[in-house]
Amino acid sequence: MNTPDLYRPLTPEELGPRLSAVPVIAGRVGADPSLWTVKEVGDGNLNLVFIVEGPQGTVIVKQALPYVRLVGDSWPLPLYRAYYENHALVRQAARDPGSVPEVYHFDEAQALIVMEFLSPHKILRRKLIDGEKVAGLGAFLGRFCARTAFRGSELSLKSADKKKDVGLFAGNVEIPAITEALIFTDPYYDAKMNHHTPGLDPVVAELRGNPALKARVQRMLMKFASNTETMLHGDLHSGSIMSTETESKVIDPEFVQYGPMGFDIGMLVANFLMAYFSQPAHRDTDDLAPYQDWILSVIDEVFSSFETEFRTLWESERTGMLFPAALFEDQNQSSRDCCDDLLADIRSDALGFCGIEMHRRTLSLAHNADFEEIEDIALKCRLEARNLAMGAELILGTQAVNTTASLLDLARQFNAKDIL
Amino acid sequence: MNTPDLYRPLTPEELGPRLSAVPVIAGRVGADPSLWTVKEVGDGNLNLVFIVEGPQGTVIVKQALPYVRLVGDSWPLPLYRAYYENHALVRQAARDPGSVPEVYHFDEAQALIVMEFLSPHKILRRKLIDGEKVAGLGAFLGRFCARTAFRGSELSLKSADKKKDVGLFAGNVEIPAITEALIFTDPYYDAKMNHHTPGLDPVVAELRGNPALKARVQRMLMKFASNTETMLHGDLHSGSIMSTETESKVIDPEFVQYGPMGFDIGMLVANFLMAYFSQPAHRDTDDLAPYQDWILSVIDEVFSSFETEFRTLWESERTGMLFPAALFEDQNQSSRDCCDDLLADIRSDALGFCGIEMHRRTLSLAHNADFEEIEDIALKCRLEARNLAMGAELILGTQAVNTTASLLDLARQFNAKDIL
Repeated sequence: MNTPDLYRPLTPEELGPRLSAVPVIAGRVGADPSLWTVKEVGDGNLNLVFIVEGPQGTVIVKQALPYVRLVGDSWPLPLYRAYYENHALVRQAARDPGSVPEVYHFDEAQALIVMEFLSPHKILRRKLIDGEKVAGLGAFLGRFCARTAFRGSELSLKSADKKKDVGLFAGNVEIPAITEALIFTDPYYDAKMNHHTPGLDPVVAELRGNPALKARVQRMLMKFASNTETMLHGDLHSGSIMSTETESKVIDPEFVQYGPMGFDIGMLVANFLMAYFSQPAHRDTDDLAPYQDWILSVIDEVFSSFETEFRTLWESERTGMLFPAALFEDQNQSSRDCCDDLLADIRSDALGFCGIEMHRRTLSLAHNADFEEIEDIALKCRLEARNLAMGAELILGTQAVNTTASLLDLARQFNAKDIL
Repeated sequence: MNTPDLYRPLTPEELGPRLSAVPVIAGRVGADPSLWTVKEVGDGNLNLVFIVEGPQGTVIVKQALPYVRLVGDSWPLPLYRAYYENHALVRQAARDPGSVPEVYHFDEAQALIVMEFLSPHKILRRKLIDGEKVAGLGAFLGRFCARTAFRGSELSLKSADKKKDVGLFAGNVEIPAITEALIFTDPYYDAKMNHHTPGLDPVVAELRGNPALKARVQRMLMKFASNTETMLHGDLHSGSIMSTETESKVIDPEFVQYGPMGFDIGMLVANFLMAYFSQPAHRDTDDLAPYQDWILSVIDEVFSSFETEFRTLWESERTGMLFPAALFEDQNQSSRDCCDDLLADIRSDALGFCGIEMHRRTLSLAHNADFEEIEDIALKCRLEARNLAMGAELILGTQAVNTTASLLDLARQFNAKDIL
């Protein structure tokens, strides 16, 4: 799979001559590359991203870099992640049709994926900072999480097929290691690449001084690293979602791995909660409450659409080895309670992962624009402290959060609280 | 890995000429194969087993058959399991030196392992039926479970190494499928290959009529199938242990897979409990109580030695990414509670798996000699009913069994109970 000798990061000038030789791309963009315009627009951490425009249409070209862009070539990163990203996109497209950009071409040697250009979509995180709403957002995302979780698991897949797939993705060893360190470990000690807003020190000291909290985080890490329930997106935050006013797509599954069903939805909800807590810095007083309420309504929708869709699939597509009809329906016994119990555990896992994601985005290497764009440091600190405190509450689970209503209440409580 | 064209099941006559060409075997048995005697002694379900004796010494040759011996060639089984068994033996020998037979030679094409001949060891199940004691048995087995569980996990291994290994063993797709069906599913419906003692029908109907019990079993199946905490033996019953009066070895890890830490110890304890419940059919009244007490003392030893060894390794060998010292000891915080919590969850998982194993050995395809050799069907039925009832209790967990003492009490209660 690894062919580093052939690989080299491409320039906009090189793309035309190279890609026009691929019929499916020439067909989409136009046969004559001299009529193409190519722009490098990657602002992420790990890749080159080109917009390739021609007389016939536009495509996106994403090429993996062999190091973390944010840090430089001191942090090498294997190119084979493009191989796994391509595999992930194919599976996601099959499990939730229309939810991800269409792949037109994959070049393994160049670690390069040519795919659908989404327009006029914008990165959802940008829209949340700018106060823009997206119709149907929560329903789409909850459905995406439910369909990929269910259809990637042994509730649906044949066990031999699923196990082969676990073997395939187990080759992707470096990418999970990033998540394991940056998300689950670094926030809780003085790790080299950490940074946090001056003024947060007392809150950070409290988190690091709480061994029960760290114990729970490490158990969640153990679950993340050793649980192959389903194929995850692995990095489902608001920067991995592109939306118009009415349509959304999920992008960038290069952190794909098999993992626990609650991970994607937990990480997603964390990013909505961070958008929520950061709003006082981005909105006028008049717009603040309605937009914060809208964000909470999206979280509500995410959970309810997740559970509705999961229950529907449970009844209609339970074709895997788990909870077979032979043990329940064929013996005239309902399996509905089993589904409810599983959903309750997925939710509990999700809230644990959610709290951890809220911590690492404020304390570890990769922060969120939601908070990072706040120029008033005292305000940023106050809002981040609320976010950290709610994260700790979710990890420790001292208050039972068994319903979405209680989760949203908790968010409202912390939003009105001065932690520092 | 699969080279079925070269493979064929060998006869005793063929072994000498073939194996004498392998220097390490000629050195162990003797250079001239005409002086060897070869006997096929396999009585298991899946393999040919030869004892090869010569002037210099004796070795065991185990060759995988391409089908389940018990059922015949209507149930094909991949030969590559010998490849995984060899990998498992090598890892177990490294993680608990001296616990498994030494491997002298592995021939992948012939699915054949040449290994240490254990003598005067006998299969432990036989000894338990015959009322023989083995000194140090529980301590050895508890230590084996602790060392393989801990040293095969990300508490100890580097994550990248462990994940590569998960990928390697994920190729072993057919073997887990057997466990998944025979252990977790078949007992709870009218599966084709099931059989049980006439007279047990009311107990069986009660088990199958309890959706909460089946739900819990399916959640344990989900954990077994989607949890790669550590490398398991995968089939650790008293037929996979060979003992003298003072020494024991663990054999036959061909059901090796990554799985939850509590699986091996749970299955092991189930087999001691079945030995315990079957004793009234094998012992005179005078010998019965002392020997049953001895079996319970072995269970006690298994758990206490498991936990002692696990705690020792936690303090001295926690070199993996989980619960790193950076988060605890380096911040002057103890991680001892984390270890206790993990051990409590391993115990709880173990008791769940234990109850399920007790069921499948009475209801599914592969039964135990402990019960099968009982000729008095009414007695067999009475003893099996106790075993089934205690299994259900362990699965449902309606009585808290948080200590080994409470587990042994429960066994004594059911041993005195007439279920039917």
